[in-house]
Formats: sequence, C-alpha cells, structure tokens
Amino acid sequence: MTEKIKIAIFGGSGYGGSELLRILLFHPNAEIVLVTANEQAGRPVSAVHRNLNGLTDLVFETAPIDLSAIDVDVAFFALPHGQAISQIPQLGSSVKAIDLSGDFRIDDAETFTKYYKLEHPGEKQSEFVYGLTETNREAIKTARFISNPGCFATATLLALAPMVKSGLLTGKVIVDAKTGSSGSGAKTAANTHHPQRMNSFYAYKPFTHQHVPEIEQHLRFLGEFENALTFMTHSLPVSRGIFASCYLETTALLTDEDVENLYKHFYADSFFVRWSDGSPDINWVKNTNFCDISAHTNGSQVVVFSAIDNLVKGAAGQAVQNMNLMFGLDEKIGLVFTGGNP
Amino acid sequence: MTEKIKIAIFGGSGYGGSELLRILLFHPNAEIVLVTANEQAGRPVSAVHRNLNGLTDLVFETAPIDLSAIDVDVAFFALPHGQAISQIPQLGSSVKAIDLSGDFRIDDAETFTKYYKLEHPGEKQSEFVYGLTETNREAIKTARFISNPGCFATATLLALAPMVKSGLLTGKVIVDAKTGSSGSGAKTAANTHHPQRMNSFYAYKPFTHQHVPEIEQHLRFLGEFENALTFMTHSLPVSRGIFASCYLETTALLTDEDVENLYKHFYADSFFVRWSDGSPDINWVKNTNFCDISAHTNGSQVVVFSAIDNLVKGAAGQAVQNMNLMFGLDEKIGLVFTGGNP
Amino acid sequence: MTEKIKIAIFGGSGYGGSELLRILLFHPNAEIVLVTANEQAGRPVSAVHRNLNGLTDLVFETAPIDLSAIDVDVAFFALPHGQAISQIPQLGSSVKAIDLSGDFRIDDAETFTKYYKLEHPGEKQSEFVYGLTETNREAIKTARFISNPGCFATATLLALAPMVKSGLLTGKVIVDAKTGSSGSGAKTAANTHHPQRMNSFYAYKPFTHQHVPEIEQHLRFLGEFENALTFMTHSLPVSRGIFASCYLETTALLTDEDVENLYKHFYADSFFVRWSDGSPDINWVKNTNFCDISAHTNGSQVVVFSAIDNLVKGAAGQAVQNMNLMFGLDEKIGLVFTGGNP
Amino acid sequence: MTEKIKIAIFGGSGYGGSELLRILLFHPNAEIVLVTANEQAGRPVSAVHRNLNGLTDLVFETAPIDLSAIDVDVAFFALPHGQAISQIPQLGSSVKAIDLSGDFRIDDAETFTKYYKLEHPGEKQSEFVYGLTETNREAIKTARFISNPGCFATATLLALAPMVKSGLLTGKVIVDAKTGSSGSGAKTAANTHHPQRMNSFYAYKPFTHQHVPEIEQHLRFLGEFENALTFMTHSLPVSRGIFASCYLETTALLTDEDVENLYKHFYADSFFVRWSDGSPDINWVKNTNFCDISAHTNGSQVVVFSAIDNLVKGAAGQAVQNMNLMFGLDEKIGLVFTGGNP
Repeated sequence: MTEKIKIAIFGGSGYGGSELLRILLFHPNAEIVLVTANEQAGRPVSAVHRNLNGLTDLVFETAPIDLSAIDVDVAFFALPHGQAISQIPQLGSSVKAIDLSGDFRIDDAETFTKYYKLEHPGEKQSEFVYGLTETNREAIKTARFISNPGCFATATLLALAPMVKSGLLTGKVIVDAKTGSSGSGAKTAANTHHPQRMNSFYAYKPFTHQHVPEIEQHLRFLGEFENALTFMTHSLPVSRGIFASCYLETTALLTDEDVENLYKHFYADSFFVRWSDGSPDINWVKNTNFCDISAHTNGSQVVVFSAIDNLVKGAAGQAVQNMNLMFGLDEKIGLVFTGGNP
Repeated sequence: MTEKIKIAIFGGSGYGGSELLRILLFHPNAEIVLVTANEQAGRPVSAVHRNLNGLTDLVFETAPIDLSAIDVDVAFFALPHGQAISQIPQLGSSVKAIDLSGDFRIDDAETFTKYYKLEHPGEKQSEFVYGLTETNREAIKTARFISNPGCFATATLLALAPMVKSGLLTGKVIVDAKTGSSGSGAKTAANTHHPQRMNSFYAYKPFTHQHVPEIEQHLRFLGEFENALTFMTHSLPVSRGIFASCYLETTALLTDEDVENLYKHFYADSFFVRWSDGSPDINWVKNTNFCDISAHTNGSQVVVFSAIDNLVKGAAGQAVQNMNLMFGLDEKIGLVFTGGNP
Repeated sequence: MTEKIKIAIFGGSGYGGSELLRILLFHPNAEIVLVTANEQAGRPVSAVHRNLNGLTDLVFETAPIDLSAIDVDVAFFALPHGQAISQIPQLGSSVKAIDLSGDFRIDDAETFTKYYKLEHPGEKQSEFVYGLTETNREAIKTARFISNPGCFATATLLALAPMVKSGLLTGKVIVDAKTGSSGSGAKTAANTHHPQRMNSFYAYKPFTHQHVPEIEQHLRFLGEFENALTFMTHSLPVSRGIFASCYLETTALLTDEDVENLYKHFYADSFFVRWSDGSPDINWVKNTNFCDISAHTNGSQVVVFSAIDNLVKGAAGQAVQNMNLMFGLDEKIGLVFTGGNP
Repeated sequence: MTEKIKIAIFGGSGYGGSELLRILLFHPNAEIVLVTANEQAGRPVSAVHRNLNGLTDLVFETAPIDLSAIDVDVAFFALPHGQAISQIPQLGSSVKAIDLSGDFRIDDAETFTKYYKLEHPGEKQSEFVYGLTETNREAIKTARFISNPGCFATATLLALAPMVKSGLLTGKVIVDAKTGSSGSGAKTAANTHHPQRMNSFYAYKPFTHQHVPEIEQHLRFLGEFENALTFMTHSLPVSRGIFASCYLETTALLTDEDVENLYKHFYADSFFVRWSDGSPDINWVKNTNFCDISAHTNGSQVVVFSAIDNLVKGAAGQAVQNMNLMFGLDEKIGLVFTGGNP
C-alpha cells in the first residue's frame, strides 16, 4: 500500500466533523494527524462522539493561530461560515484543502456579501473548484482547493444537472426542498428542541436561503441556464436526510421512459447516484454517500425527486469523495457502506 | 338547551371514525346513538380506541343491511371509498348525511371513474354540497348531503382560495403537499411500518393522486381557474398533519404586505383559519380544527404555506363544523380545542 | 354560574405554564388575570405558545417584585425550583397557591437541602398539602397551599398506593421509570437536541433523582412503608409521557384477579385513574389527565405498570384538579378531554 | 487472501436477513452464494432491501425442499421460529450452521415446548453451542452448529455475566428491558403501525417472554445462579436498539469503582463490549456490533445498564462474529463499523 494521506480536520466537534472522523478513521489510505475543536480541546474525540468509543485515541486540539506550519497533505475545514475564509490562505503551499462551509462557494462578491454578510475572499476564490463530484470530476482531480457543496445544493444540483446539460429545460424551475434536523448542526437551538421538533414540519427562509446563488451559479456553469429558479427550504422531523422535489418543463414532450434514459445515461459512470424505481426515500440513503433519483412526467411537466444523507453525500462523504480524486484514488474508496433497511 | 342531534357514525373503527367519536362525545348538542364497525361488532368502542376508555359505553354494531330504518338526524360515513355511494341513497328522507369518503366529491362521471375505479353516483351527485366550510357556508347551511373534502384538498384549497377569488392568479400552480402517516388509515401497511417510516420521506402517486380533480373542480367553482395545476403528494414521518407549499404567480406585483392583507381579509370571519407570522408548522395545528396559513412573495412569485391536522380539519373536525352549520349552530361548537406546545 | 375564579400564573412560558394556559383558558369557572414570563414580557402569549393563536389575547407580564398586592383567588407557580420558595409567602392572606416546583414537597430540611441544594422553607412547609389528588382529596379541599407532585412521583405513587395501603407489600420495591423529552422543559439542552434524542434511550441520575425522597415520604404517609425503594429514571424519545414499571412483592400469594380487584376497588371513585386490560401505553394517555394502570403477578412477584402524560396528570392537569377541589368544584371540571387514537 | 467462505442465508427478506446481507456483502472473507425468501423468490435482493441498490446482484431464491445438496461452508438461518428445527438436520456433514431463531436455544424439552409451542429438537440440541460470543468463545471456535442468542438475551446476559461469574450475586434479579420496533420484524402488525407506535411506550408479555428460560439457562451455565429472575419486556418508539436495566444485589458492599473494575476486567479482551462513563445510550450503539455497559451502586443495590443494536449485536452482527470464530478468523472482521453521532 502506498503511504497514507496525512489529514487535518478543523472543526471536529460538529456534525460535519463527526462524519469526517467516522469515514476517515476507516479509510484505508487516510491517517488523521490533527483534529481541532477549540471548546473541546484536550478531550478525547470519543468522549464527544461517543459512537467512536473504542475506535480512536485521537484527542481534540486547539486550532493553531498560524496554520502555515501544519504538516499534512490535506486539511478539511468543517467550521462555521466565515472562519475558513481567513485560515485556508495561511496553509503551506503543499497542503490541499477542502472547505465544507460556504466561504468559497460564490464567485460574485456582491452576491456573496448579500447572503453571507461576509467580505468576499476576492481573487483567492479563483483557486477553488466547486466539489460537486459527479459534474466536476476532472477539475477536482487537479484542484488544490475544493469548495464542497452545500447539502441542499447537492441534492438539487444532482437532480437538475442532467436536464440542464440536455438543453431541454425551459421555463421556471421550482425546487421544494426538505431537510432533517442534523442540518441545523450540533448546537442546540429552539427549532431542534426535541419536544416540538418531533411533531413538526415548517418552511423557513422563504426566497432567501443562501444555497440559492450557489445553485444558480453551478447551473449556469453546467449549461445554458437562464431560467427563473424558486428554491424553498423546509424542516423535517428526521435526524438525517434531504429530499428535493424539482418541478420543471421541457421544450420537447418526454415520456417517463425518455426521462429515465436521460438520467441513467447521464449518471452511467457515477456509482453514487442511483436510479430509483418509484420515488427515492430518505430511509434508503440514510448513512450513505448515495443520491437516489427518480423522475416522472405527465407530458408537459417533469418532476425530479432526489434524496441524500445531508451529512454524508451532502457534506463529509462528498468531501472524502473529492479527496480521493485529488489524490488519484478511486472515488469510492472508504465510501462504500450503506444504512440498514430499518 | 335544545334537543340533541341524534347521530349515527358508519365506520367507527378507522381514524376518521375515531376522531368523530372523540369530538362528538364532547359536543354539547350531539348524541351518538349508533356507531358501526363490522369487524369490531360487539366490542366496546373504548376497547378499540383505548384513548376513550372511561369516556363512553358505546359498543360497535354491525351496519344494518337496510339503512332506511335508521332513526337519526344525521349520519356520518367514515367508510372506505365505494361504500357510502350505495348506502346514503337508502337513508330515510329526514336523515341528513355527511360523507368523509371520496364517493360524492367529483361531478364529472368520467373523471370520477378514472380516479376511483367506481361507477359515478349519477344524479344523486347533484344533491351533494362540497363541504369546504370556509368557502361554501351558505350552501352547507341548507344542504341535506355533504361531501366532506379530502385532507390534501382542504389544505390546498384553503391556501389557494383567496388568490383564485382575487382574480390575480396567473400561470401554472404547483402544490407540493406532505402528509403524516395517519393519512394512510388505521390498517397496517408496508408504508406505515414503524421501523422504516420513522426515518422516511418519499413521494407517491406522481401526477395521479385522486385529490387532483377534486381540487381543480372546486377551484373552478370558486372563480376563473383555467390554470395548469401540478399537485404532488409526499409522506412525512409524523403521525398527524398536512403541510402544503403552493407556488403561484400573480398578474400584479405584490408585496408581502399585500398578500398578508389579501389573506387576512378573505378569512376575517373564519375562526378556524389563522394567519401565521412566519411559516405555519404542523406542530401548532396538531389535534386542532385550525388551518394555519402564511404567504410570501419575491415580487414575481408567490408561495403560500398551509398546515392542518389531517384527521381534524382534514376530516372529522370539518365534518362536525359542517354539521353545526346544517343544524343552525355556531360552526365553532365542540371544535374549540387545541393541541399542546410540545 | 357562580363568579369565576381569578387566576395568576407565574412562569407562563415554560411547558408547565403552557399547559396551565391551555387548560384554564377553556375552564368554565376560570379567568386568567395575570400570566408572567420575565423573558417574554410584553409579548402576546400566542406568539410564544403558537398553538394558542386565536384563542387568547393575554400578554406576558413581568412578575411583580412584591406579590402582596396581587388580587387573585389562586396563583399557580410554574417556575424553576427555588423561586416559589420566597414568593409564595408574600401572597396576601386571601390568595391560595399551587406550586408545581419541588420547593415545598419535602418535609425534612436536611433531605430537602441534599436533593435541591436550597434552604428548606422551614415552618412555612407545614402549611402545604401534598397534591396527589387521588390519595389526599380531603386535605386538598381545605388547603390554602398545595405542593403539586412531581411527574415521576405521580406515576409512581399512583401505581404503588393501593399496595401500600393494602398492607400486603413486603420486601424491596424497584421502580424503573421513563419520561418523554418535555420533562426536561422548554429550554434547549444537549439531551433534548432532536438529531440525537430521536434515536436515544438512556438512564440518568442513578440513585440520586430528587423525586426519590418525595416518593418515600408520601409512601410513608400512606401506610406502613419501611421498604427499600430503588427508583431509576430513563429518557424516552417521545415528547410526552411517563411510564413506570414497579416491581414488588406481597406477603400473600395473589392472583392476577386479586390484584386487579385490589386496584379497581382502590380507584373506584377516581375518574382519572383507569384500569388497563393489558399494559397501559403512553399513546392512550397523551394529552390527558388520566393515569392508566395494570398489574400482573406470577405468584411471588407483582409488577405494576402506570402511564401518564407528564405535563397534564404529571403537572398542570393535576394542579387544576386540585384547584377544583380547593374551590368546591367537581374535580373533573375542565379536565375531561382526551388525546387521539393516533 | 485465503479462499472465501461460501455462505447461504435462509430467510433473507426479514430484518435479520437484511442485516446479514448488509454485513456479509462487505465482509472480506465472505461470499454469499444463496439467499432464500420464498415470497420474494425471483426478485433482486436490492428491490426488497432498497438500501442495497447498486451493491449486489443477488436474487432471492426459493428454499430447496432438500437441503442436503446445498454446497456451502456455512448456512445462516434467519427464519421464523419452528423452521430451522427441521431444516438444519438436513444439511450435509461439511456444512456449518448458525441459527438466529429460538429453535435450538433451550436444552430442556418441557421448557422449550411451553415457551415455543414446538416439539423439542431432542438430541440434535446437544450439537448446538450457544453463541453469546463474549462468554463462550472457545466452544464457538470448534462448534459446527451455533444457536445465536436472542436480542433481549444478549443485552441481558452481557450485563449480568460479570456479576454471575464473580460469585458476588445474591438475591433476586430484576431486568427491565426495552426494545425498538424492528424487534417485531419486517411484517406489518398493529403494534408497529407508525401513527400509534411513534407516541407509544408499553409493556408486553409480563412474566412470559420466551427469552426468560434462555437467559436463566445461560446464567446457570456461567456460574452458580440459583437466583430468582424477573424479566420484563417493553416497546420503545425507536427503530433499532435494546436497553436493559438490571437490578441486583451483591454479597459484599461494592463501590462504583469496584463495579467498574469488575466489568472492565471481565471484558478486557472483548472489543465489542465497551464501558460507558455514565449511562449507555441506544444512540451510540445503533447500527453497530457494540454492547455499551455501565454499572452503578448505592452500596446495597447495583444497577447495570446495557445497550445494543437488536439487529446487529442482537442478531446478525453476533452471528457473523461467531462465524468468524468458527472459521479461525479474528472475530472483528467485517464488524468494525459504527453509526453516526446524530
């Protein structure tokens, strides 16, 4: 076996970090040499993520003030928005980075500031490749810096990409997206308080979710996308999972079979995108790096459904998938696992 | 107090029947004199609906072969589709009826047969008034027969009615609707098997749900509705509740305030429709007869969210609301209760 | 109708307060004239408890510094432990009080301080009657001050009381008790964070829960109770409900029928305690003031199961039941409602 | 790598079979050559267990009438009780077998028939080794036939074994055990109907659960166990997981530290039993082969808590752990995976 990839994880106590740890601890080519969590510094990783009890002796460390001396091959940043933006530029020139936050996802400075209330990274942005693996593999393979897609953006873009690339898309696109509670993170909050959340379903941030510009930008990158996009986010009372219902129109009348063929062809070489007979279901993708998709038409209208695990394909799993490509590995390594039937 | 309304409930062992019992047992003007459930005949109601233990001595009876001798003021039919269609015509001429099934919801015979695989009731259909209370009060007050709306139809129509009546609606309408597991009824089934359903979210019956023609028919009844409607149903892992996200366009550019005023004005006299600051949430309407609504706009696009309890406002509660009107009572009687915060 | 009881609720923003509001707003003899919540002062009650939207115009107020001028008939205290202890003594002499906290539950000063880390109320304690309604009705009727039982204590004591009073109890008593997440209150916390709690079951505070001395004290009050009690608390992933499994031995060999008769006889006049054929189930008591009980024996060993809604019979409902008795009303008034089948 | 173990799975459509498939498909030394499911014969495994979509081309087959010609190294039986009893004896002499049902768990014929309503396997029973791995490794290594423990029995026995072996146990033992809904299997049933189960907690089969004699028999096998055992089963509204609370007494007064040392020492060489600081939690063992244990004492009384995933350590995972030992492999192979934090 070749030498292992030396890895740092910045922000290891949140759910993104938790899943990076869970995946990378079992990755045959990976070696985690540093995991930070300022509020948990000094505590064993397995005391915070008790699912990892017995599986690691790693201890959380305080993030160094200066990152230039970090001696790793790749650093994952699973920090709240606004932190990686100043940290990644400090890394030594031999260190690659994968950022799970939104800091480097938006090219347009004005748009970025409007949605994130942060100063745009400026020309540093041009060094980042958008890490939606299935649509951007070649660029990812040679990238030094990856901006890992948002969870909602992943589910939405994988559902829409074949249509946009086909050139058949016309008219408005409406995406009704739903996420599980882990999407709100590991910090407690009123909207994830169990007594209320378990019986809850609601919409939030109408017309203003920060994944809107990210989705629009990548759709334009994929093809001619001049369409109006309405993207609406909702909260589900499950722990894990995103489900996107995408409503769109096509220039030609398509049958269900046409649509199925279009999607199957587009993802023929993408192990982690599965065609679903009937609707996808969050239950079947939970704890996996898969995105399940189905598409249906009544002639004039097409609906595409996609389901992912927000913390795996929507965050840590896709980040590792990208790491695999960046280091010349098969993108599946360390990611071929599945959740249960129940 | 005036004499009590004598009531029969046909189909008392399902969830619709269960909620009719729960509401009517405490209704000050109601007296249940017959409740049928063929498979449970002879068993106390409280042995099947154990929540009613100590609250009623009623015993399930076998439905009579001939309903003409039933001596009640009103009969509720909470049977599977296809049974009330032959039973209600048997009722004596002094007996009113409220049907919770789809048997008398569709005027057009061909459409009915296509969606329900049943023969249309024919001219009997013309004796039925559609029981969406807030949009049809005057007709309900003088009706002998009520066809109670479907749960999805209720949530969707209450969300869309003000826009349709305003004449401002234009273009396509897309409704992304989600229901809790009790919508599938009290009979066990694979899609309501707890080990899988608790982690599940999926779509079903794309483009073919039987509530589509019901919604379209009533929208045309309400105003000029020539628009294309896409209505998509999904399954939520909660017990109770429906949430509808309705995407539409208006001929004029509206502000959030315009939309709010439009809805508040339309429902000013409707106690059971509440304006919601921010999104409605299933949590706040569970176990109630309320429909919570909010509406938002980004100028070109409007989204309306509505939430109801599928078994109360979406079934038994609205049925009792209609009964109140049919007997000259305040529509709120017996229905002013609420679920908890958690 | 007689004049209404004027009511103040101190601590109206928590779950106990929320349920007091929900019950008392519909109580035919009650009028809420003051509801406090310091952090929510000035906000409408229905903006915090959105289930009450449309049902009340009450606004949260800041609690007055001096309670002596409060002009009400009865004040409910639904505050965190340690606050009512100094506030109730300020009340004018015509004001009755019902305290839902633990401040006045423990007679022994040393025990109280050990479990609550607070100074004992001293002789004020002797003015309080313990409000386990079914075992203490006569004292409650003439009490000015009620210490309302803890939720775990209510479920446990109602399960054990008939056995203790029978004199048949011998040997050790083991109570394995489980509570829903609303028992932890409305404030967010790590143990009620939805992403983890929904898949969770765990024990907490082994051997040290503060309801232990409360249970022991009342068991000794009920009869000759010199037995060792082991009481263990666990957390369930439901919103509402407590289930207690009580293991005990009897001096005589009893049959299932003997035990059933013993319990049915003991609670013959207690509307809110229901005998359950088979095990009780939290599902059947949720949102109600009922306590469902079953008991079983294999000859040498007896197990008693009890289930309540922790916020109703375990808190606000029992408090109102006690208020009814204190004002000469039927204990059932305002409390005869039930949750649904699903 | 040595040649792979050729495997047959009888009963692949249930949850036990589903988990065997999920584990063995990724086991580096395993090759599944036959998987039966009579009702699903001819359907792809991934059409039934849609989590396995893209991961296997296996197709369910009808079980052969005569098993003597099955050419495999080991056969797993994940069938309803009463089927393996006649099938395993048919296997060719070179085929090992691991039975996940209760058919070969009870030595005493009368006890077996009382609890299982089946004829005892007779002397065939003596060829079976009880597969509680941590307590029976040496016998398992050389066994041809393994009777895999029940899920409740696994959680209970792992909690009690160190105490029984220590000889310190005295007096009665009470086990209050709780299981998730997948313990009832993949077939739909009233008690696993989602609308009710999600808000439910109840006890079942008081004093009569079929795991009682299994637990007692193995406790006597482990040491001097003449104690009375009360074992009570309850249903939890989670999909996966068992939690056992075990109440016992010791001949000597022990401290928390004593108990911790006793357990840690006993399981020092058992990778899959983890000591838990504070209570175990189903959340931390879900989807894993771990059993988490904590134990606490107040001097006179000891309580031991254990948590497992009922389908992994309580069924398929332990079965594979035993297979590993039977074929001279490290018991951990294919089983070192973990569920997530949320």
